[in-house]
Amino acid sequence: MSVTIKDVAKASGLSISTVSIVLNNKPHSRIPQATCKRVMETARQLNYRPNRLAVGLITKRTKIIGLIVPDISNQYFAQIAAAAERAAEAQGYSIMLCNTNDNPDKDIAYTHTLLERGIDGILFTMSVNARSNRAEECLSILRGAGVPLVLIDRLVENDSQELSFVTTDDEESGYIATKHLIDLGHRHIGCITGAMGDQSAKKRLFGYIKALQEGGIAFNPALVAEGDYHTTSGFEAAGVLIEQHVSAIFSHNDMMALGAYKRLLQAGLKTPEDVSLIGIDNLDFTEFLEVPFSTVERTPGKMGEWAVSKMIQLLGGEDAQPEKLMYSPQLVVRKSTAAPKY
Amino acid sequence: MSVTIKDVAKASGLSISTVSIVLNNKPHSRIPQATCKRVMETARQLNYRPNRLAVGLITKRTKIIGLIVPDISNQYFAQIAAAAERAAEAQGYSIMLCNTNDNPDKDIAYTHTLLERGIDGILFTMSVNARSNRAEECLSILRGAGVPLVLIDRLVENDSQELSFVTTDDEESGYIATKHLIDLGHRHIGCITGAMGDQSAKKRLFGYIKALQEGGIAFNPALVAEGDYHTTSGFEAAGVLIEQHVSAIFSHNDMMALGAYKRLLQAGLKTPEDVSLIGIDNLDFTEFLEVPFSTVERTPGKMGEWAVSKMIQLLGGEDAQPEKLMYSPQLVVRKSTAAPKY
Repeated sequence: MSVTIKDVAKASGLSISTVSIVLNNKPHSRIPQATCKRVMETARQLNYRPNRLAVGLITKRTKIIGLIVPDISNQYFAQIAAAAERAAEAQGYSIMLCNTNDNPDKDIAYTHTLLERGIDGILFTMSVNARSNRAEECLSILRGAGVPLVLIDRLVENDSQELSFVTTDDEESGYIATKHLIDLGHRHIGCITGAMGDQSAKKRLFGYIKALQEGGIAFNPALVAEGDYHTTSGFEAAGVLIEQHVSAIFSHNDMMALGAYKRLLQAGLKTPEDVSLIGIDNLDFTEFLEVPFSTVERTPGKMGEWAVSKMIQLLGGEDAQPEKLMYSPQLVVRKSTAAPKY
Repeated sequence: MSVTIKDVAKASGLSISTVSIVLNNKPHSRIPQATCKRVMETARQLNYRPNRLAVGLITKRTKIIGLIVPDISNQYFAQIAAAAERAAEAQGYSIMLCNTNDNPDKDIAYTHTLLERGIDGILFTMSVNARSNRAEECLSILRGAGVPLVLIDRLVENDSQELSFVTTDDEESGYIATKHLIDLGHRHIGCITGAMGDQSAKKRLFGYIKALQEGGIAFNPALVAEGDYHTTSGFEAAGVLIEQHVSAIFSHNDMMALGAYKRLLQAGLKTPEDVSLIGIDNLDFTEFLEVPFSTVERTPGKMGEWAVSKMIQLLGGEDAQPEKLMYSPQLVVRKSTAAPKY
């Protein structure tokens, strides 16, 4: 049913080889400009469309990049995906999206699926629940297949030299959020972490501890409650911290901060009068809340863009080297943080 | 570099044709169970992976479904995408994601891109800015290529018989939101619409007008302010409605309701004491707000799932018929709506 080069040749009265040279954009020196134009116009009239499957079999390139994310319904990852898709499209690439729901088995299953689909490369944000041996398994499958990989945001334990990755400094994110609270005068600061199987959560916690130490405040493990980046876990973790009479809470992301805010309200505690609250991510809704959240701006858009441009570089030639890039986070001060009452 | 059927044959000591029959799951009657097992095990040991590009050229099927959405960073569309991806994966399909930023030129460009990639079908949520002639252009390209299409959520002017679509009743959504406000005693009700080029916005507005008429309230165009589904437009539209001294606002989605809430606060108006507010979508954050929003629950997850199952049906056989499905919305009453003061 579909229009072939043969059909274009017939309709334009030119030879198949001439039409093939023009439509496949092969180098040539002898085809006049007018002939090229005739080929292109006939192709357009007939609605000719190159068969990229066939092209892919010959070139071994599909111009499809796989993108594996843990939770596309979290705006943060959606922003990474939107930016990656925009950057890829501008370079003639398409994105194949996979969503793992933070299930490390899916990390591996999708790696296989994408390889079978002949994708050129994979952009990967690993599941928070991926223990290092599962992450290693993924990496070794990809190494075996010779397909380039760029990790986004969530790193794996064993950062090997061959890996490219882009992230926003997690330790610094935890540090500046906590330091902001200390600078306001807080000394009894609770921390709601992401899932602790995740490197990002560990590093954000290190940042929290580092800021406490610099501020001469002893680290108290009772003031740390583990969440899983989802709103409900922030709600529950805040309940634990309220019992510890914290004057401020640093949450590892905005979604959990929202849950914590709700829990504080239910306990009759006002933000920031009774308890200050700061998150990470600067999600759209945070500035529209009745008490707009102080937060830490990360750079999902920039990360998605950079990951694609690095991937295309890696696909482009043998002299392209793996590269690691870390963006700096920015403190965003709004109304949810203030000096403690006493 | 990659392992072929030939390699599996050599390593297992079986013929290429036997291995091909087993690995490609072709019908056969003479290959013993034990031999099949030997082939599968050898294939696994060698990390054999079928070349789906080659398979696709022969079967004319890639098992890839294209998904075109207007704004993946809006949680509503992200939920559609996540559900579609989950449903597709369960059936051995992959999703190729395209994000148009509500740009109708991108609707058309992505349609071409997906067709070139040899996708089996397209799930489509059209740009709000698509005037009907642009939408028609898209549809005619797809018809020309003989590729099945399922529209999700946003319909086009000219609902032809051949089209499959799934949506949540837009008129009903507008109707139940407005009726809820009328039942509370409101008579001076503002409406913030989505982009009026969009069928969904028109139908939600019809629902608003229908509820007013049933309530014996004259429709006043001055109480309608056009937005574009984004938060900032809700903020601005609310400014217009405040000047009209409305006692309640029905916003065509939650993101704009969030903007309206903020604008009311800035004007010194409390929700719901001074102005009641209701949105549509029941996004995650709405229940965690200090004044949890009343809203209308739509069914992005169900729509994404249904669209994929319909698509797979359409791909499965000639007896599969186009189908139209409309889910019913549900009113969710929380704290942002109450009886008017006077």
